[in-house]
Amino acid sequence: MTAGKRRRLDEAIARIGPLDTAAMDAAAARLDRLTKPPGSLGRLEALVIQLAGVTGRPDARVDRRAIVVAAADHGVTRQGVSAYPAEVTPQMVANFIAGGAAINVLAAQVGALVTVVDVGVASPIPEVPADPADPADPAGPPPGGRFVDARIRAGTADMTQGPAMTRDEALRAIIVGLEIVDELVADGVDLVGVGEMGIGNTTAASALTAAFTGVAAERVTGRGTGIDDAGRARKVAAVEAALRMNDPDTADPIGTLAAVGGLEIGVLVGVMIGAAGAGIPVVLDGFITGSAALVACALAPALDPRLIAAHRSAEPGHAVVLRHLGLQPLLDLDLRLGEGTGAALAMGLLVAAVRIRDEMATFESAAVSGPS
Amino acid sequence: MTAGKRRRLDEAIARIGPLDTAAMDAAAARLDRLTKPPGSLGRLEALVIQLAGVTGRPDARVDRRAIVVAAADHGVTRQGVSAYPAEVTPQMVANFIAGGAAINVLAAQVGALVTVVDVGVASPIPEVPADPADPADPAGPPPGGRFVDARIRAGTADMTQGPAMTRDEALRAIIVGLEIVDELVADGVDLVGVGEMGIGNTTAASALTAAFTGVAAERVTGRGTGIDDAGRARKVAAVEAALRMNDPDTADPIGTLAAVGGLEIGVLVGVMIGAAGAGIPVVLDGFITGSAALVACALAPALDPRLIAAHRSAEPGHAVVLRHLGLQPLLDLDLRLGEGTGAALAMGLLVAAVRIRDEMATFESAAVSGPS
Repeated sequence: MTAGKRRRLDEAIARIGPLDTAAMDAAAARLDRLTKPPGSLGRLEALVIQLAGVTGRPDARVDRRAIVVAAADHGVTRQGVSAYPAEVTPQMVANFIAGGAAINVLAAQVGALVTVVDVGVASPIPEVPADPADPADPAGPPPGGRFVDARIRAGTADMTQGPAMTRDEALRAIIVGLEIVDELVADGVDLVGVGEMGIGNTTAASALTAAFTGVAAERVTGRGTGIDDAGRARKVAAVEAALRMNDPDTADPIGTLAAVGGLEIGVLVGVMIGAAGAGIPVVLDGFITGSAALVACALAPALDPRLIAAHRSAEPGHAVVLRHLGLQPLLDLDLRLGEGTGAALAMGLLVAAVRIRDEMATFESAAVSGPS
Repeated sequence: MTAGKRRRLDEAIARIGPLDTAAMDAAAARLDRLTKPPGSLGRLEALVIQLAGVTGRPDARVDRRAIVVAAADHGVTRQGVSAYPAEVTPQMVANFIAGGAAINVLAAQVGALVTVVDVGVASPIPEVPADPADPADPAGPPPGGRFVDARIRAGTADMTQGPAMTRDEALRAIIVGLEIVDELVADGVDLVGVGEMGIGNTTAASALTAAFTGVAAERVTGRGTGIDDAGRARKVAAVEAALRMNDPDTADPIGTLAAVGGLEIGVLVGVMIGAAGAGIPVVLDGFITGSAALVACALAPALDPRLIAAHRSAEPGHAVVLRHLGLQPLLDLDLRLGEGTGAALAMGLLVAAVRIRDEMATFESAAVSGPS
């Protein structure tokens, strides 16, 4: 059983090749014909070139956009590591389905479809209220997310007392992510953003970040949803205890994910690897999606240049993750919400980059002189 | 003549009051009812509060968006300070009118109307080609800009040899900006971005920045559209020569603008002061609009908290400007094109902030628990 899943993952990893440098050169040549000094649109131009490399097409499209929000609970919340009770995880999943959450708003703005995946919420998802949102906008709430029930277990175990989940469960979570990408590919999706929800998951992200980067728990553990000083001290202690208890070997990324990760983080690992294999660029969000990228890039080193870092979050561990992955974020807005909100905002910049490539006049067509 | 214009400007400055703190408190209270940890959307939340303070409305709208692109030429180009010939200024104005420039693309994406103001282009604007753009997108080019002919003189004089313009001309340029805002207000515009075009205008911006901040010309002078090392050395020398020749007194901001500024910079000063007086937030672009903000804030100190810094440009002087004004940019994309391109991109974040405020569910409406 596990061997079959591992084979499926290895096949997905094997589909990730190097970037297409010919497509990148062609995209760069197109940019230099446009009526602007070469390179003057900075990172928008770099995005156009990266999209060409990832997709193999100088004219890569980002027309069908999707955001995958994976949700699960964390046994480590028993250690008092979060400002919010675990019941908020299913409540927020219901909110995603109803269209009332921040990710619904920002995904609607950029025209991205939201897929909400329950891979291990500990308690039942509440009924979605008939009139869930109370928006000040008379146009009403944005569209709700598509719901995927892929529950593997009712939240992870408390990682301070043993592994968060079994190796097979970690692998199953990754396969859920691969399967979601298969559906997105069938729907013609050409740009994927990732997000998450799970009370306690910044604690798991801190443990993964400490494990993969070697940076001390104290430096990669922040306030999450807004815990106080005493709570943060408990959180640092929980991360240290989980690492001591499980002693994860990062040469075995799946074992590390099982030991100190999360089910939703496993889904995101699968989404990243699956999308990369399908030639679809992946827009990361904040700290938790970044910790999933650490696992995914450890499994599939060719994945790295296919990732786009949306923003640098207010969580201190996120800068450590980005540095480790060599990624430069597009936005620096002190976001710390998760859900994929930063990814949705960054998608607007990707759309802008593609429109620049396609809609600007060239020096020839507009009769504009070049450098003197 | 000059006295009447000065009175008009003083009246505009007097209309700029303090921010409306009651509206800001109401906006902050609304944000804290939404289904997210307080403050977790970082600078998006700060923007919502700033919009409330500037407009006096907790439910401030940003529905009718406009970008004013002021264009003029610079006599200092005779000193070999630009990578491009001065003929590019009118060619690019024609491109703005035709819809083929980067600002047309990015303004169209965010739904902003472009107004192009010729306040001192040295040579005639070429006929707009019948089929100006050659976009790869079959949908064709974005809409062209509305053109305003407000030419005061055929470019500034060479500021290394004397003042760039007379005091009366500087004041007239500012009044042009005030008049453009009057038209935008009549059109119901509720958000204004600023941009510019003028071969040689980073040299003027460097001189203004050195004058207002006291930072050395060497540190605030960059490569503009991409000049080489020898050209940059000439540019630094030109900035130093202009400051030595004119010895501007920044306690007299109009005199300083006349001495080492530009006609398009004067228009932008007027746009900023006029918009602020009308309760309209102003989105800055890069280094040149930042140098205009130095002049505008010296004239009207109450203007400062009404400005929104879109991005930090690749020009070294821009960081000096932002620090002097106490503004933190939203984007850091290594842009160095101008035209208002960064302002247009940042407008997308303002729209996102307002949609978050209006479209999200509240904790009550979505039945989500608060902190434990």
